[in-house]
Amino acid sequence: MVVGMFGGGVVGGGVVEILQRECAKLKHRGIDITVKKICVRDASKKRDYELPSGCTYVTNYDDILEDPEIDTVLELMGGTTGAKDVVFKAIEKGKNVITANKALIAAFMTELIDLLAKNPSVKFLYEAAVGGGIPIINTLQSTFPPDSVTRMCGIMNGTTNFMLSKMALEGADYGEVLKEAQDLGFAEADPTADVEGLDVQAKIAILVKLAFGTQMDPAKIPTKGISKLTSDDFAYAKTSLQSTIKLLGVAMINADGTLSVFVSPMVVPLNHVIGGVNGATNIVTITSDNLVESSLVGQGAGRFPTANSVCQDLYLLAKDRCPAPFPDAPPGPALVVSSDFASRFYVRMHIKDGMGIIKTVGELCEQNGVSIHAILQTDITDVNDVKFVVCTEQCKESAVAGMCDAFAKMPYCLSPPLYMPMLS
Amino acid sequence: MVVGMFGGGVVGGGVVEILQRECAKLKHRGIDITVKKICVRDASKKRDYELPSGCTYVTNYDDILEDPEIDTVLELMGGTTGAKDVVFKAIEKGKNVITANKALIAAFMTELIDLLAKNPSVKFLYEAAVGGGIPIINTLQSTFPPDSVTRMCGIMNGTTNFMLSKMALEGADYGEVLKEAQDLGFAEADPTADVEGLDVQAKIAILVKLAFGTQMDPAKIPTKGISKLTSDDFAYAKTSLQSTIKLLGVAMINADGTLSVFVSPMVVPLNHVIGGVNGATNIVTITSDNLVESSLVGQGAGRFPTANSVCQDLYLLAKDRCPAPFPDAPPGPALVVSSDFASRFYVRMHIKDGMGIIKTVGELCEQNGVSIHAILQTDITDVNDVKFVVCTEQCKESAVAGMCDAFAKMPYCLSPPLYMPMLS
Repeated sequence: MVVGMFGGGVVGGGVVEILQRECAKLKHRGIDITVKKICVRDASKKRDYELPSGCTYVTNYDDILEDPEIDTVLELMGGTTGAKDVVFKAIEKGKNVITANKALIAAFMTELIDLLAKNPSVKFLYEAAVGGGIPIINTLQSTFPPDSVTRMCGIMNGTTNFMLSKMALEGADYGEVLKEAQDLGFAEADPTADVEGLDVQAKIAILVKLAFGTQMDPAKIPTKGISKLTSDDFAYAKTSLQSTIKLLGVAMINADGTLSVFVSPMVVPLNHVIGGVNGATNIVTITSDNLVESSLVGQGAGRFPTANSVCQDLYLLAKDRCPAPFPDAPPGPALVVSSDFASRFYVRMHIKDGMGIIKTVGELCEQNGVSIHAILQTDITDVNDVKFVVCTEQCKESAVAGMCDAFAKMPYCLSPPLYMPMLS
Repeated sequence: MVVGMFGGGVVGGGVVEILQRECAKLKHRGIDITVKKICVRDASKKRDYELPSGCTYVTNYDDILEDPEIDTVLELMGGTTGAKDVVFKAIEKGKNVITANKALIAAFMTELIDLLAKNPSVKFLYEAAVGGGIPIINTLQSTFPPDSVTRMCGIMNGTTNFMLSKMALEGADYGEVLKEAQDLGFAEADPTADVEGLDVQAKIAILVKLAFGTQMDPAKIPTKGISKLTSDDFAYAKTSLQSTIKLLGVAMINADGTLSVFVSPMVVPLNHVIGGVNGATNIVTITSDNLVESSLVGQGAGRFPTANSVCQDLYLLAKDRCPAPFPDAPPGPALVVSSDFASRFYVRMHIKDGMGIIKTVGELCEQNGVSIHAILQTDITDVNDVKFVVCTEQCKESAVAGMCDAFAKMPYCLSPPLYMPMLS
């Protein structure tokens, strides 16, 4: 195998290092991989890894794409402009492609599937695109075809899980932990993609295709981030609900057979396997007819975990063990996507205290078809700044949203209620 | 694919049911599997699943082995006598084999590897042999080849984890939980294979081959069971060490480069991912150079989880995506196996109280090269029946064993000390 690599940064460097370190073992297993060219923006920049002997830096895409000796392209540059050119042209030229680019796959899945259908000899692998070092792609492509998935949910963003774990374990507030994550280099200067759930949005879109055969426009997946969570929410979750809060990507088959997909912070019981996953670690938990409940836990990012996923794909390619990249939807009527899923919900109200508020909550819940499971209220220290929590019974998201919209109009409501589903 | 199945019991019935339920989806993916014959002891026995149309029960091995139409044999009968005949003859006849039989693979790995080398066209798969529904075999064969594993440990027996979880969460004693597990059908009338760790012994032997390329005689793996644990141990673990006790299969590279493999109850911190896995759920946690720490969590037994693993193998076979079953050891000097691993240890002493005992513990530890980290003693209610705990610093297992042997000879020692490694 002769490889051309686009992107010589953190992940690319990791791939080069792993292939050198594990070279003897891989050769012993009949695998001989040569990285011939690495396409970078600045070939003279000093890198933190050694170039393999015989490998050169190039700066033009075509130096790789037009090289007939290169049979496999690694796209590790990220983004959806240059990366799209590279991936699509490589496929058109009959080169196998391995990519870590979730945004590209999620945004251009239809075009990719069409192009791969026109180039049936091309292998396309993307283990590193979701869950960093967690082999969720290969597991969905290998273990789950004979099974029927009913729910898939997981922590798929290390930056936000680092932040939420700090908020849960140390009582820190959102602004503090964001600054700390930025100082440590975990969060970008513009943290929007992470904290508003857009990174998870692309990942869950890819997993939905693999688990259900259903293609989703990621931009249409209802997505809420973590920026409105406060330390009060973590205190309520922990003290009153023996739970914590995690940002989850979720896909689930509803009771009526529809499919709901969303990204949202969720209240997760501490004794659920997801509730114990802290720091930058990620987890995907799958509920299914045969396997009941399975979880994969591991590093969701980082040089070597992500690079290992790329090397797994190289290994499967070298061993001619590549899965079909995107399974068709099963026969029969297509799954209907519904954004209105049922769950128990946590609703945090922010008010200036006064008479009759609980009565109004009761009335608004009744009017919107929301049944109240519990109302939680810690000691009030300032009557002008009170947060209390309503936990609902199982109800539709639209019902809770309607109730919250109505409550937001009340004169004593200081900020719109924050609601999130509770994992069970 | 035309399949002949040996064993029509719990797992076999599950395979038949899954293939029927998921038939349309699998056919849509180009997979057409016919189960032609099921070999059982009593063909007239009523079963809890429907026979696929065209499938018949047979009672002679040769009805399947000599049927040239059958290209794939599922061995789901268990045991190592009849099952060995069936598996070896099927391979000799050029039929692909899928088996769930950990004992067979662990005990006859050398012969199997030789036979498969002589029949290179035969595919041999065994996902169901370890971890029930957890895809640990395929993950080790796909994700870890470019990585270097340094430690692998896990809960690999659902029966004992059910028992240990009850002891930890309810304070129950060993005899009670064993009886409950037997009443519920989780534990056999003769529970030896489970509670003495022999089931885990076979499983860790298989995982060692996959992770390190090293072949181990399972009978030579140091193995301790759970039958000597008492409720005192769980109380000490929980209260003084924020830990619980799990029966683990462990394989690890020591500081001197040797490989230690053992089965033992271990003290596991509650905030470690393994510490939160309760009931019949299993987990395998792998520490490695690239992926840092990865865990697979799922159902370790049961009809559909185990049958799904068999169906995964059927799927990979149908898709021509089979891994090489047993990787060679990597080039270079072979790993040396050493039974004398280093760890921190929990040592529980059982004594009649008296003067100078702690002094003796100190002397014996010093003589044996064991450094004491802490001595734990809850309130004494009966001076004639006292249990206290010594936690050691990192030391060799042989040193702790020597210290315990010496302490067992003391006149006030009521039963030999129980020691187990502490997971860190």
